[in-house]
Amino acid sequence: MGLVVQKYGGSSVADAEKIRSVARRVAESGAGHQVVVVVSAMGKTTDGLGALAHQVTASPEPREMDMLLATGEQVTIALLAMALQGLGLKARSFTGAQAGLRTDRAHTKARITAITADRVRGALDAGEIAVVAGFQGTSDLDEITTLGRGGSDLTAVALAAALKADVCEIYTDVDGVYTADPNVVPDARKLPRVAYDEMLEMASLGAKVLQARSVEFAKKYGVTVHVRSTFKPDAGTIVTREEHAMEDVVVTGITHDRSQAKISLLRVPDRPGIAARVFGAVGARNVVVDMIVQNISRDSTTDISFTVPRGDAPRARAALEEVAREIGAEGFAYDERVAKVSIVGVGMRSHSGVAARMFTALSRESINIQMISTSEIAVSCVIEDKYAELAVRALHDAFELGTEGVRP
Amino acid sequence: MGLVVQKYGGSSVADAEKIRSVARRVAESGAGHQVVVVVSAMGKTTDGLGALAHQVTASPEPREMDMLLATGEQVTIALLAMALQGLGLKARSFTGAQAGLRTDRAHTKARITAITADRVRGALDAGEIAVVAGFQGTSDLDEITTLGRGGSDLTAVALAAALKADVCEIYTDVDGVYTADPNVVPDARKLPRVAYDEMLEMASLGAKVLQARSVEFAKKYGVTVHVRSTFKPDAGTIVTREEHAMEDVVVTGITHDRSQAKISLLRVPDRPGIAARVFGAVGARNVVVDMIVQNISRDSTTDISFTVPRGDAPRARAALEEVAREIGAEGFAYDERVAKVSIVGVGMRSHSGVAARMFTALSRESINIQMISTSEIAVSCVIEDKYAELAVRALHDAFELGTEGVRP
Repeated sequence: MGLVVQKYGGSSVADAEKIRSVARRVAESGAGHQVVVVVSAMGKTTDGLGALAHQVTASPEPREMDMLLATGEQVTIALLAMALQGLGLKARSFTGAQAGLRTDRAHTKARITAITADRVRGALDAGEIAVVAGFQGTSDLDEITTLGRGGSDLTAVALAAALKADVCEIYTDVDGVYTADPNVVPDARKLPRVAYDEMLEMASLGAKVLQARSVEFAKKYGVTVHVRSTFKPDAGTIVTREEHAMEDVVVTGITHDRSQAKISLLRVPDRPGIAARVFGAVGARNVVVDMIVQNISRDSTTDISFTVPRGDAPRARAALEEVAREIGAEGFAYDERVAKVSIVGVGMRSHSGVAARMFTALSRESINIQMISTSEIAVSCVIEDKYAELAVRALHDAFELGTEGVRP
Repeated sequence: MGLVVQKYGGSSVADAEKIRSVARRVAESGAGHQVVVVVSAMGKTTDGLGALAHQVTASPEPREMDMLLATGEQVTIALLAMALQGLGLKARSFTGAQAGLRTDRAHTKARITAITADRVRGALDAGEIAVVAGFQGTSDLDEITTLGRGGSDLTAVALAAALKADVCEIYTDVDGVYTADPNVVPDARKLPRVAYDEMLEMASLGAKVLQARSVEFAKKYGVTVHVRSTFKPDAGTIVTREEHAMEDVVVTGITHDRSQAKISLLRVPDRPGIAARVFGAVGARNVVVDMIVQNISRDSTTDISFTVPRGDAPRARAALEEVAREIGAEGFAYDERVAKVSIVGVGMRSHSGVAARMFTALSRESINIQMISTSEIAVSCVIEDKYAELAVRALHDAFELGTEGVRP
């Protein structure tokens, strides 16, 4: 008998009927195992509560926001426990507090500091299915906290680590991780296995399957994650530690992100401390910068380009307008019609010529590359947005990802 | 500076706009005081959650029901705290658990065992308005419990007792306690003060203003309760300990209840143990019996009549069908077109002829009395339902309740 943590997202538990079918899914898939089920709020509940808060006051305090939002998951756990009981199973629901999920005091974006999970363990030992509220915990002040968007994934992975579960199953409306977005690339292939680092690059590079913090957590504690469909019984994608055979494949997948904007500071004097000034000003406005590119200087000046989430772009511009004059930059350019396409794979570490193969594939389609950035296991290019889909398909072909049987 | 506990019911906080106006009401009425606000779930939320539970399974377990229902008040406290903060006031919300409201383990109908309220006191000392979730607490097992219908009143009164508040204000959609239902008696008068025992009789006799358990609790701990309107600034009715002057008034109010059914067991052998058998059988089906009348026997048989809530009448009948044969009763009669009218007043204790005056008033209108029952401070008669309103008006006149200035 194994111990399985299963997580179901908001769309899987959107109404009473869906909650009943999740209960049946739990009953089938969990038979013969100890099962912990982590759930999100029903459907769009969290958004609805947020909207209600903003009807009440323009800028709700984060502590009260957490008090409010945490009710969403509490509703789901009670209903799912009832549904399981209705099938004749023993089940018991637990809030984040009751599950012993402790966090720091950073309301609306708390970080997990510890998980005791004594009551969850007790329920399992008593033969009960433990149904735990995702997304929430309590601080050392016994205040209710939430973990931020996608926090239920994190709850599931963290519980799996604390309980030394055999696997953490993330049930979602897609049935696994693909070599590229199947909506863009018709012959995209479901990957049976990906390494944590690959998943991490994919998660932060625009693949929406699994929240990046959860992958980091899973990697840190060696939790095997299985991303699979709520609606289909087929196996999905196993996210796990890197295996030797994975390196045989140069590129595992292609991701793309069309939600960014590109900003360039032009002809910046090439002096020490300039980059720190620029990104200090941007960071001070709570803008998270993604890619940063700076090339060698020419005529003692250089251009600094970076990308930010499109919604944050106005704040980033405002910051730059202040700082551009102070540092003596000539001006700046702004473009939100950009897309980032990336190739990801642990095999890059041991294979040469990968980036060149990417650039060649793009140039063959006459796609101009505006920015390039590389990490150990990924190469990303910023291109004009209208070429995004074409680029993804070209790269998918160039790295032969549509061919079955490449990855063990 | 005094300490005030205010309670607002579901209809007062039914949407964002109403929550904002409750916030303004709290700001005005609480200025210069330490204020604790107890709130119910928004509008029909509790009913909605209950319906959802029944969509998921036919008979939800009480523990999970409490887990589910407790979210209703948690939403309201967060939103009200936000609304108060939006007005520039310091406010902090507390769940039942955080407010230290401890109960026994009887899910969905828990009884309060203790209130620590340390965090509430801390908030008040820090100059904050404490916003507390009504209706909920936690058991010694750290399980979330609820107090049953009307439980928010009880939370408010219990907190007022624990904090030694100067007054517990119950804000509601009526503006006080009347000498009779103003919909039935046009010249019904708002009572400035009533004694706990009177309020208790009125609460259990059909006046819906205040939950009976809250009144008992207020009496036990000497909490002064002020029932008043959410929407009008006028003073309402003070429910308080009995004062000498109250006895000058023979009858304080007339109540009526049209939601009962009358059941009679006919020609029951007059033997010891018969009543115990009858009401044992009824009680075993969870039917709460209200009035019971049994007269002296004739021909060694007697009739036993009683009233039950109309919705419970079928269950009571089923119980009687079993028991009637066993005890050798001749049969039973059932009538749901009945109403109970009552006169209530602590002055009855020291005045004679009160019941006779009631019966005379009814007979003057040719209203036949089917059953009579008396307590120390109330006399109740069951009559044919169609005479209910006429009876209330006749009694209101007979005891001169429409005349102003009688009660100090």
